[in-house]
Formats: sequence, structure tokens, C-alpha cells
Amino acid sequence: MQRYLEELIRKALEEDIGQEDLTTNNTVPKGQRCEARLYAKQDGILSGIKPFYMTFTVIGAEVDDWGACEDGHAFKEGDLLADFTANTREVLTAERTAMNFIQHLSGVATLTNKFVSKLEGMRCRVCDTRKTTPLMRQLEKAAVVHGGGFNHRHTLFNGILIKENHITAAGGVRTAIAKASEGTHHLMRIGIEVRTLEEFDEALDAGADVIMLDNLDLESMREAKRRTGGRKVLLEASGNASLDRVRAMAETGVDVVSVGALTHSAPAVDMSLIIENV
Amino acid sequence: MQRYLEELIRKALEEDIGQEDLTTNNTVPKGQRCEARLYAKQDGILSGIKPFYMTFTVIGAEVDDWGACEDGHAFKEGDLLADFTANTREVLTAERTAMNFIQHLSGVATLTNKFVSKLEGMRCRVCDTRKTTPLMRQLEKAAVVHGGGFNHRHTLFNGILIKENHITAAGGVRTAIAKASEGTHHLMRIGIEVRTLEEFDEALDAGADVIMLDNLDLESMREAKRRTGGRKVLLEASGNASLDRVRAMAETGVDVVSVGALTHSAPAVDMSLIIENV
Amino acid sequence: MQRYLEELIRKALEEDIGQEDLTTNNTVPKGQRCEARLYAKQDGILSGIKPFYMTFTVIGAEVDDWGACEDGHAFKEGDLLADFTANTREVLTAERTAMNFIQHLSGVATLTNKFVSKLEGMRCRVCDTRKTTPLMRQLEKAAVVHGGGFNHRHTLFNGILIKENHITAAGGVRTAIAKASEGTHHLMRIGIEVRTLEEFDEALDAGADVIMLDNLDLESMREAKRRTGGRKVLLEASGNASLDRVRAMAETGVDVVSVGALTHSAPAVDMSLIIENV
Amino acid sequence: MQRYLEELIRKALEEDIGQEDLTTNNTVPKGQRCEARLYAKQDGILSGIKPFYMTFTVIGAEVDDWGACEDGHAFKEGDLLADFTANTREVLTAERTAMNFIQHLSGVATLTNKFVSKLEGMRCRVCDTRKTTPLMRQLEKAAVVHGGGFNHRHTLFNGILIKENHITAAGGVRTAIAKASEGTHHLMRIGIEVRTLEEFDEALDAGADVIMLDNLDLESMREAKRRTGGRKVLLEASGNASLDRVRAMAETGVDVVSVGALTHSAPAVDMSLIIENV
Amino acid sequence: MQRYLEELIRKALEEDIGQEDLTTNNTVPKGQRCEARLYAKQDGILSGIKPFYMTFTVIGAEVDDWGACEDGHAFKEGDLLADFTANTREVLTAERTAMNFIQHLSGVATLTNKFVSKLEGMRCRVCDTRKTTPLMRQLEKAAVVHGGGFNHRHTLFNGILIKENHITAAGGVRTAIAKASEGTHHLMRIGIEVRTLEEFDEALDAGADVIMLDNLDLESMREAKRRTGGRKVLLEASGNASLDRVRAMAETGVDVVSVGALTHSAPAVDMSLIIENV
Amino acid sequence: MQRYLEELIRKALEEDIGQEDLTTNNTVPKGQRCEARLYAKQDGILSGIKPFYMTFTVIGAEVDDWGACEDGHAFKEGDLLADFTANTREVLTAERTAMNFIQHLSGVATLTNKFVSKLEGMRCRVCDTRKTTPLMRQLEKAAVVHGGGFNHRHTLFNGILIKENHITAAGGVRTAIAKASEGTHHLMRIGIEVRTLEEFDEALDAGADVIMLDNLDLESMREAKRRTGGRKVLLEASGNASLDRVRAMAETGVDVVSVGALTHSAPAVDMSLIIENV
Repeated sequence: MQRYLEELIRKALEEDIGQEDLTTNNTVPKGQRCEARLYAKQDGILSGIKPFYMTFTVIGAEVDDWGACEDGHAFKEGDLLADFTANTREVLTAERTAMNFIQHLSGVATLTNKFVSKLEGMRCRVCDTRKTTPLMRQLEKAAVVHGGGFNHRHTLFNGILIKENHITAAGGVRTAIAKASEGTHHLMRIGIEVRTLEEFDEALDAGADVIMLDNLDLESMREAKRRTGGRKVLLEASGNASLDRVRAMAETGVDVVSVGALTHSAPAVDMSLIIENV
Repeated sequence: MQRYLEELIRKALEEDIGQEDLTTNNTVPKGQRCEARLYAKQDGILSGIKPFYMTFTVIGAEVDDWGACEDGHAFKEGDLLADFTANTREVLTAERTAMNFIQHLSGVATLTNKFVSKLEGMRCRVCDTRKTTPLMRQLEKAAVVHGGGFNHRHTLFNGILIKENHITAAGGVRTAIAKASEGTHHLMRIGIEVRTLEEFDEALDAGADVIMLDNLDLESMREAKRRTGGRKVLLEASGNASLDRVRAMAETGVDVVSVGALTHSAPAVDMSLIIENV
Repeated sequence: MQRYLEELIRKALEEDIGQEDLTTNNTVPKGQRCEARLYAKQDGILSGIKPFYMTFTVIGAEVDDWGACEDGHAFKEGDLLADFTANTREVLTAERTAMNFIQHLSGVATLTNKFVSKLEGMRCRVCDTRKTTPLMRQLEKAAVVHGGGFNHRHTLFNGILIKENHITAAGGVRTAIAKASEGTHHLMRIGIEVRTLEEFDEALDAGADVIMLDNLDLESMREAKRRTGGRKVLLEASGNASLDRVRAMAETGVDVVSVGALTHSAPAVDMSLIIENV
Repeated sequence: MQRYLEELIRKALEEDIGQEDLTTNNTVPKGQRCEARLYAKQDGILSGIKPFYMTFTVIGAEVDDWGACEDGHAFKEGDLLADFTANTREVLTAERTAMNFIQHLSGVATLTNKFVSKLEGMRCRVCDTRKTTPLMRQLEKAAVVHGGGFNHRHTLFNGILIKENHITAAGGVRTAIAKASEGTHHLMRIGIEVRTLEEFDEALDAGADVIMLDNLDLESMREAKRRTGGRKVLLEASGNASLDRVRAMAETGVDVVSVGALTHSAPAVDMSLIIENV
Repeated sequence: MQRYLEELIRKALEEDIGQEDLTTNNTVPKGQRCEARLYAKQDGILSGIKPFYMTFTVIGAEVDDWGACEDGHAFKEGDLLADFTANTREVLTAERTAMNFIQHLSGVATLTNKFVSKLEGMRCRVCDTRKTTPLMRQLEKAAVVHGGGFNHRHTLFNGILIKENHITAAGGVRTAIAKASEGTHHLMRIGIEVRTLEEFDEALDAGADVIMLDNLDLESMREAKRRTGGRKVLLEASGNASLDRVRAMAETGVDVVSVGALTHSAPAVDMSLIIENV
Repeated sequence: MQRYLEELIRKALEEDIGQEDLTTNNTVPKGQRCEARLYAKQDGILSGIKPFYMTFTVIGAEVDDWGACEDGHAFKEGDLLADFTANTREVLTAERTAMNFIQHLSGVATLTNKFVSKLEGMRCRVCDTRKTTPLMRQLEKAAVVHGGGFNHRHTLFNGILIKENHITAAGGVRTAIAKASEGTHHLMRIGIEVRTLEEFDEALDAGADVIMLDNLDLESMREAKRRTGGRKVLLEASGNASLDRVRAMAETGVDVVSVGALTHSAPAVDMSLIIENV
């Protein structure tokens, strides 16, 4: 993770800076140091304090007196989130990149937390998806955890999930499950997505370990739960999981609700970085 | 752009796939081809058709019969946005990555277009900021244009903008402008951000070419406009530019309104990729 | 795989060539073409025809009239394995690298096949390990399949296997299994290695899905099998799996025998590349 | 070498780990340290202690109290080869990669040493070839030296050796030697491989500095030696250099015997890494 | 700059060394340290002390007692320019690469300084061009500054300059200026190259901010200056700016003279590195 | 060479362009094609036609009707050197980079040719050194050949040359030669640099194959030649090899004169690229 993060931050800095920060290098005296303070301008859950910090160190700032809230911290508008001293030039050149990370990731954690709060007291998990921002998956999946949610499969190599299009390509639920079982090594379970109760019955019968109910109405979800009987199979609900609807979905008895919006539609949290005592 | 895009897509694919797409390679027959159709599941403005297409070619799909709407196209829920035939395995393995690009970028274009529509008939421009997603800047800035907006400075190397923190570090508006003018080659103008009318007067007097009014109230923005007299100086308003407030901001007489939300808080547009005729 | 292979071959060529093949470029006329023939100098099973071929194309040879046996083919001493025409310079410069791949990989396939032949008629699988040559894992695991064997977990990310050292670190079999179950997403089974029947009982009781019997004697392996009762648990035997002992191991009733020697101790198969008709 | 090794080890670790070591990270407490001990499970000659050590440092382990035998050390079954304390997580995640290096390289050193022992008391050298494992050449050539052998040419750029196929392409021994002499800068000698005494005579006559006798019988090798008269030419024997035959080859009077098996067919040495005192 | 320089130096070292410095590693005792002294063998202006120093650190030398003149220093034949102690092997292996940097860059600074001296007491600047050595631009542009000159545009992305070929492609001076003004963000000025007084008038009339007079005779340059009237436009002279002619060019009243020879035709400064006290 | 060149050109283009060629993309119509003509503005010898051509193809220009003089061609001021049609945008964006290569390399070839012409009718060779521009060695060494000169050792790995500093470090001429002979494989000769006739005698006596006479006066060079007697040793003269002095150096009887200026001090040849028929 350390190297992935360093590389990601270095490229993000290059993207933002180009060859040189002309404004900073021409207005800020060489060698000047400052105190930098990061303030919240709205309520939320913090995520991204590590890439925020590393953006300054990757660019070469000598950071002293570092103090910061931890990822997962619930903050209020006006709260001081981080405070440190460093070279003014490096702080100002790296500022926008550092902020772009922490504002977006705190946005993901904050939205996740709103979903999680809706299921308070329930056993059902709020889970992310692979609908993440290109090259930000590991950070976004960490932000989901900071917000109280759970991660799903990270890549197409570390879990089997047969989707609607795979069923079409394979020629049916039963064939797809059989072929996946044959071809995979024995350390993996078989998951499958279904769109109707008929497909659900097929999947259950074919021995699926995990069944995703995709865009089913609440009554169908309840019926699917009933049909599992005592069998050891995990139910996951996906599609249309809004803040208004998520509790009703969980109450159907599913084990997991997966929510794409956690990572693809979370608005950034407003924050501000102010330098002082130059 | 071509190489930046190829590299970005290749890394995004690697991030999503890991070593191999186990589900697809075990359920989809080798050599099978399919027709793939991309549908809109809500209204919006299209952006990202190029990275969408390239995701399939970068992974090695042999794409035939390609048909698609162009970036900037306004679509309705249910519209067919793209249609092509290709190898089923490659389509399914690349699907999520391709969708992650086009749904996010269309989200940026769609939100931009809502802002632009508010200023219909006015000369004032809606402009993006550097508050972009790490490693997605060029694509997001293109999406802003597809939505009818305008781009601002791309990197810290291709324009001078003195911000609040630079003023603090330099020791005042006047010094900052003087130092920036001295140190930069003669092909660039000098821009500066001000937070009060007093700073505005200083900036105007020191010969700034562009003055950003940061978080000023509407009355102060009007006053700033009055104080420019006939002088050749460009006014830009930033901060709190919501859909409700953007027209009132423009009506103060500023030349540009810059809106961070275009790129940092645009919700993804819902779309769906369906394969047929395998 | 295509890109991994191209990159691997390119680096292997650079390692062998340095800046230039001085001998070839000073003795072979520019533009000369030749017929190249690959002969077996001992019996074996072929693996590596793809990297063999690609070594010539990666270096830029224009290969015509390509003919070759397929991976998995059983050959005899003296057999012609591949035959093609190409630029003499490129053939001679790439020859050693191409040969280094195919001779080693055919060595792996050939040794695997000897183990597989010992279990003829049995349901028990011969399986590889992670004891592979650095940077050659994917090719060596393919060679195992060409030899009739099966692959195990590819990386530490696509399967859970608790080894002796993990048990020590976790503080016991039971704790290790519990922690692994808690922390992993639900699409994976839990495997564990045991060194005694006591550990075996603990693992069975704690709900392990796969149990590796590490260096147990044949009688203990039989006893372990008995103790599984009807429970759905997979048994794997590892350690000391020589050609002499592998059948006896399989006959204890285990499902899998894993053999490190397949990839770490297979002698290269002797082959020779001759050019003609220059 | 340092950078080549770091890069090689980093890639080997990535190949073995994938994104994360799921088993270790879910069973081993964060921050735990352990003592790790490397034991020999058979007799041999050590090589690879540097890549073994670096694998742990490259992954980020904080290694203390490092103690280890040196490359070239002759060990017995049961000997302790290395002993150190470090973070348990990093030790277990890097273990397999570190072992894959040291077991293979010690295999090369051990086999080399068997050949070298056969020539005890003789002036004739045992020498490696370019038949090395892709991307491991520098390490394997070092292992040959640790086993008491000598290195040959490292790449096609740092020495001239005209092989059988070059002679075919050039149109004869004499032409090949003449062209190589003309085209190369004056700091290099000219070496050539011959398959018959006729070719040997031609090479000798054409002024070759080094002549390789490829697959000649012992009597022909003796005859070649006789024909050199007092001329300053180096003789090298290659082909069929088994442990049984190597001394007889040396006794024909050749200066060097080169042995491909040293690097392409050395079985790995069995070793075991045990952690304690967690 | 730090990373660009490290990468550049590393590649330059690889280019010069290949796999290993055979001479040094076979003649210089391991662990030996020496004092190294860099002497000037002719008069000049120093540039490149940083890449000179870094070449030794990048290769891994442990440099002590570093003392050196600063970039921009005017030196005489025989002067000691730098003095340090380090590992003899690393010093000798890196020597040629370090010297290649500092001799070339000091050559650029020295030639620049000759031009600058010609304009002593004048306001007109001596400026470089984009006619730099591939991959050395940043270092060469710094060398120009060390010699007392000024930099022009660094890349095609950080300034607009319409050249003769652009005018041809656009269809005229006026169209080219209009299109460039439309398409560029408002933080940049518009520069244009003209070859005749007619083009000059067009450019002036179309509102160009900067006009380059390309290969105009001195009288035409004076006339161009006259025609600017009081208008705020910058004049730059380029073409045929020899040491003999540069003052006459400046005396026509232009603001800048740009000189390609500063970077593309500066002879290297002769220097010598001697080691002592080994 | 192909890949080294592509990579070099790609980096050179990136260095010159930055993110985008703003001027070209805003003034030249998309899709426009032009005829481009390269003219000589002074006499010289051509080198670099391949990197010139490749710069346009690497950037993606579709080049048609390519016609050009070959490397080594002697041209006159005003001659047409190359002529082709291509996309105007790509031509103009790549122009400066392409020109930077061909003007510098033709400069090297042209200067080399002046030295070579001085030795007309003599057997003595004009040879380059390792005093090349960082990252341009292969191209510059090719340019020396185009100018009629010869190459010396390419890297520190493909030849042994003991320099003055090595002698100091080794503790004398004799020791240095002995250690180099021992440690190197038998396919290389031993070269050494001497500064006095005493050192020359030592080197000769110690069996050096090549002796470089560094900065010796003409009489000493003649004396050295005399002292070789009939012994097979190659003499090379280096230091102060100006156009005025090179013939006198050759006439002392040395076999090679090596000249650093060929690559480190050759002024660029003036050329001009004009587009037409847009």
C-alpha cells in the first residue's frame, strides 16, 4: 500500500504541478516555514489523513509538529482536523493535491456513514462495490471502512461473482455455476447475481454459496429469504439502495446491502487549509 | 492525450482485474462474440465515450460495428448510447472499468450543463477549477467542455494565480504581484485572489490582470465591478457557487464564475451495459 | 499474460544481449534469412512454445512458415519440435534466450508428467506449490498443467492458507482459523497446514475447509482421512513427495498431493536449434 | 548490482503476494516481532544470502540481530544458516520469495562444487555458460563462483564467440574469423566453436585466440591439444560434461570445461525457515 | 528538478558503464578512499556543480569534505573547482559521466557570458531558445542563467509563440493571432514571429503582445521599433546573433536578443579530475 | 537501437512539448496536411536522418512521400536534405525536437570529417572517446562513423583501459596491468594510458596490448613508436588533437588518434524546416 500510495501521490502531484509551481516559486521566499491548519467547513467523517500527510512528504516538505485527527473521526464544521509546520513553498505547491485526496475520501466516508447509521442495531452489512474511481480503489475501499461499512471483492482475481452477462454468455444459471466450480481452485466460494425468483431457485439448487438479488422488489427479497430454508447461503441485495430505502431492504432479511453510490457519487467534504506564522 | 489515456486505462484495468478475471474465464466460452449495448438509465450529457471505447481496445477486444453518440450529446433515460460487437470475454472483463469512466465523466458533464443552463443568454462563463480527481484532470476538464463550460489553468506551470496563502507568505498583495511579475517570463498575465474590497483595491492598483473575488457577497461583487472603472481587468467569482446562486453571481457583472463542484461533487450517471446475441 | 510475457522476454533478451550481439552482427550478412529447426535431444513433454516463439518476434524477427508441436505434446529424442524461417541475425541473437525458456519449462512439464503417471487411474491430484523461480511463476504453473498436473493458489491474495508459522504467530490453530474467518470476505474458504493429528483434530473442529497434512507419515495420513468422517473437508498431503512415494501418499485417501520439486528442481530438457538453407 | 537486485526482488515479491498477504494480515497481530531461523535440511554450499536478506528489507521489515553464514560456506544438514529478529508479518509475507532465491542459488553453488571437487589439484577450470534462468543470470553466475567455479562471458556484448550457426551463416570458419576480427574494436580477442578436427585446424590457422571443442570425443580432444603445438591458443571443452566424465575431459589438456547444467539443472537445496519467540 | 536530475544521471551512468566498470573493479582495491580534485584547464564560468556532485552520490559514493565553487563562478585556467574525498572505485566509475555534465554545462555558461558581456550597461536581455540538447533542457537553461542570460519559454505548453510555419498553416498573421487569442485561457499573452515589416505591421495591428523580428537587418529592426509608437509591445530579435553583431542588434532598441548558439554550439570547457592520497 | 531511439525521442518530445503545443493546436486546422522541406543553411556532412524521421512518426504523424539524403552525405548550403508530406499539426509540434537531433548530429559528423580529411592517405585512424553528451552516446558514435571516423570502446563493460587515476589507485603501472589481466575473462585485451616514456616502458614490459600516449609531445610519441621494436602493441595518441596538429600526431607513427572534441565541442549545423502547400 505504501508504494502504491507514493506512486499515486507522485503522479497526482505531477498532474497538478507540471514542471514547476510558478506562482509559489516567485512569491514565497526560499526557506520560509509556516504553520498550516486544516479546518472542516462542514460536518463529516474523516478519511485520507495518510495521503494528505504523504502528499507533503512526497513533495519533499520537512514536516514538524504533526498533529491530526484519525481516519474514522466524526468532525463538526469549524473543527481543526490537522496542524503542522513545514516549508511554505512545499505546503503551497502540494496543497491542492493533498486537499483533493482528503476532501474526496472524507466524502466517501461521510456518505457511507449515513447509510450505516440507517441500519443501526441490525446485523446486515453495508458493503461497497467495484464502482470506484479509476486508480483510487484501495483508498476508497479504506474510506468505506472508515465510514463503518464493509468491503466486497477487491479485484476480479480474488473472488467469483457470476453476473447477468456471464449467465447470458454461459447459457444459463446452472451451466455458469457448474463451469465456475470446475475451473476454480478449491479455496473459493461461488457467488451469483439473479434478477428473478426463478433464477434464484436455479442458483440455490445448483449450489451457489452467495446469491445477489439484483434490483428485486422488497416482497421478492423477503420471498427469496424464505426459500433459502435453513440452507447455508448468503443473500446480498443490490440496486436502488438509497438512504430512504436501505433499512427496508435490510429488513427483508438479506445479509448484505451493496451500494455503488458510496464510491461513485459521494460529494466532496468542504475543507480549508490556512497557513499562519510564516 | 492518446498515451496518457492508454496508460491510465491500462492501470485502471490492472487495478480492477488483478491477475485474471476468474469468473469470466471460467464461464464464458473462448472465442465467443456478443453484441454489447450501453443504455442510459437517467437523463444527462455524455462524456467519456473515448475512454469507454479505448478500455475495450486496450484490453485487446476486437471491436466491430462500433456506433455511439458523441461526447456532449444530451440523452434521455432509456436511450441507447453505444452499440458494438466484440469478444465476450474481453467485454465482460473490461466492462466495469469502462463504465466507471463513462458514468463519472458523464456525471461531470451533466452537472456542468445544469450550471451552464442557469446562465443562458449571459456572457459570463462557467469555469472549472483544479479541484479534480487525482489522475483524472484531463478527462474531467474535457467533460466540463462537453457540458458547455470552460477550462481554467491546467497546471501550476501554465498560469500565475496568487492565492490567499501566497499573499500571507509574500507579506501582502502588492509584494506578491511585484515578485510574480519580475520572476515570470513575459508571455504570462498575473492573476490574484482577494477576499475583501480593500485587497481588491490593492490588487487593481498593483496592476493585476485578473482578480478572483473569493467568497465575496453579491453586493461586494457588484461594488468591485464598479471600482474597475474602464480598466482592462478580468473579474472572476469563486466560492459558494450553487445552482441556486450562480445566476445572481453572474449578474453582478463578473466575467467568470468558477465552480469546484463540477469536478469534485458530480454524482455518476446511471448506465447499464447489456450483452446480447452471443 | 501477453504483456507480462512480452515484458519478461524483453528483459531476458536485454540480460543476454547487453547493448548488441557483437559476434552475430560481425559475422552474419545483413538481410540473410535461414530455416531454423528445433530438435529434442531427449524424451519429454513440451512446454514453452509460446515464449520460444515470442522471443524471436519480440526481438523483431520476421518469422514465416511457422510450424511447431503444441504445449503438452509428448516427444522422443530426435523429434523435430519446431521449424520456421526468419532473419538469421535475429534468430542467432535470440536463440539462447528462447532456448533457456523452452528447455526449462519443458523440464517442469516433463517432471510433472512423471509424477502424474504414477497416479494413473486415481482421483487424487498432483498439484504445484509457490516454490517457483522468481518471475517465472505464471509460465511454470502453465508448464505444470501441460504436464498433466493442477495448480494451487497463485498468490497470497487469491486464497487463505494458514501455515505452521502463522499458527505460532497467532497463538494456536483455533485462534488462527477464527481470525482468518472474521477478517476475510465471504467468497473465500479457509485452509490450514497441520503437522500432527492433534493439530488436525483442532483444525477439523474449528471448521477448516481445507487441511494440509505436512510431512505426516503414511499411517497418520490414513488416520486423518478416517477422522474426517463424512465431513466436507479437503485433505492435501505435502512434504517428501518423491516419485517413489507419491502413489503410496495418494492411496491414503488424500485429495491432493502437492510437490515443490515440480517447479524448483526440474532439470532442463536438452534441445538443439540448428539453422539451415541460409 | 544493488539496484538490479532490488528491482528483481521487488518484482518477485509482487509476483508472490499480489495485492496483499491475506492470511498473514488476518492471523498475525500488527506490531508483533519474532526470531526467524533458517535451517539446512541437507548438505550443500551456500549462495544467495544477500537476496535472502534483502527480500526482508525490500518488503520493509526492520531486521535486527542479523547473523548468517557467508556465501560459499559449506554446510551440513541441520545447520543453522541464518538467524534474525524482525516484524512477524513482513517475515511471513516475504518468506517464500526469500526461500525461492536462496534454495535455488545454493542449488547452483552446490552442484558447481561437485564438479569443481572432481578436478581437485588440476589447473583446468570449471566454467558456466549462458544457459541461465531468465532474469537470474547475475545471481547464478555469482553462485557458480561461490561453488568454486569460474564465469564465462556475461552478455553477447562483452566477448566474441563464433558458434556453429554463425559459421553456417558466414559461410565457413575462415570467413567468420576474418569478419569478426575486422569489425570489432581492438580490445577483444576472437573465440570460435568447432565440431571436428578439420574445423579445429582451420580455426587455428585463421588465428583464433580461443577454440571451443564442442562435443568432441576424448581422443579428439587430446589430438587437438597436440596440434596446438606451442601456439598461444586457449582450449575449451563443452558438451556432455557430467560429474562422471569431467575429470577425463580435463585430463585431455584443455584449459576450461564449460558446463550448462551448473545453472540450468541444479536441484534446489532443501531449507526451512522457522519463527520463534513471538 | 531533483527527481528529473537523479533519473537523468542514473541513465547517463548506465549508458557509460553498461553492466560493470571492468577496469576499475579489477585494478582498484575494494574499500579504498581517495581525495579527488577538479581543476579548470581554461578560463570560464562554472555551471553543473549539482549534477557533477550528484553523479557521485547517485552511484553510491560516500562523499566527505565536499568543497566546491558555486554555479556562476568565473574561474581561471588552473583553478581548483571542487575537492572531496570518496570511495576510489565509485569516483573512477562515475568520473566520465560527471565530467561530461559539468564540462558541457560550463561551456554553455561560458559562451552565454561572452554574449552578456557584449551588452554591458544595456537594458536589452540575452535570452536562450528551445534549440537545446535532447533531455538536457532544464540543465542548459539553468546554465544560461549562471552565465548571466535569461530564459525564454520552457515548453510548448507554457507560452504562445506563433512562428512562420504557423502563419502559413493558419493562412496569415491576422487569422493566426485571432485563433490563438480565442483558444487560449486568459492568463497568457500572444507572441508572434515576423519576417518583414509588412508582417510586423499586421501583427502590431492585430494586437500581438510580443513580436519577434526574425532575421531582419539592423535598419528594419530600428524601423520596427519606431513603428511601435508608444504601444505596449515587446520586441525580440532572433537570427544571426553572433558575438560580433549582438551589440548592434541590441542598439536597435529591441528588448530581447535570443541566441540559439548558447545551447546548441557551446564548446565544452576543458577540465581535469585528479585523485590523490589513496 | 530502435527501442532506445524511440524512448529517447519520446522523452525529448515530452521535454519540449509539456502537456500540449498550445500555439499549434490553436492556429493550425485539424486534419490539415503540408509538404515539409528541410534545407541546409551551411555546408556539412549529414547525420541523424533516422531520429529526424522517427521524431515525426513517434509523435503520430502520417508521413508520406518521404525522400531524404542518407547519413554520411556531404551537402552544400541551400541543398534540400529531406522532403515529405504529413499532418501539419504533428510536423510543427515535433519540428524543434527533430531539428535539435539532426543539427547536433550533423555537427558531429561535420567536425569528424574535417579531422578525417586531415589524415587523407594515411593508415592512422581518427577515433572518438567517451566524452559524449549524456544519453546521446549511440547516436553520436554513429555520427562519428558517418563523418568517416572510427569508434572506440562503447561502455566501461566492453573493454579494459587503465587510466592515470587507476594507476594511482592500483599503486603503479605493473600492478594495474597484472590485476586487470588476472580478473578479466580471457576474451579481452589489456589497454593502458601512459603520461611519460618511463611509464611507457613499464607498460610495454608488463605486456600491455594497447598503450595510449596521453598528452605526450610529438618527439616523445616518435620515441615511443621506436621503442616498440617489432612487438605487437597498438599505439594511441590522445590529448590536444586540434585540426592543426592532428596530421603531425599521426605522422609520429601512432595507429589511432582519439579526439574528444568530435562529440563534446561540435557546433550545430544550421538547417531550416519550411512547410508549403498546406
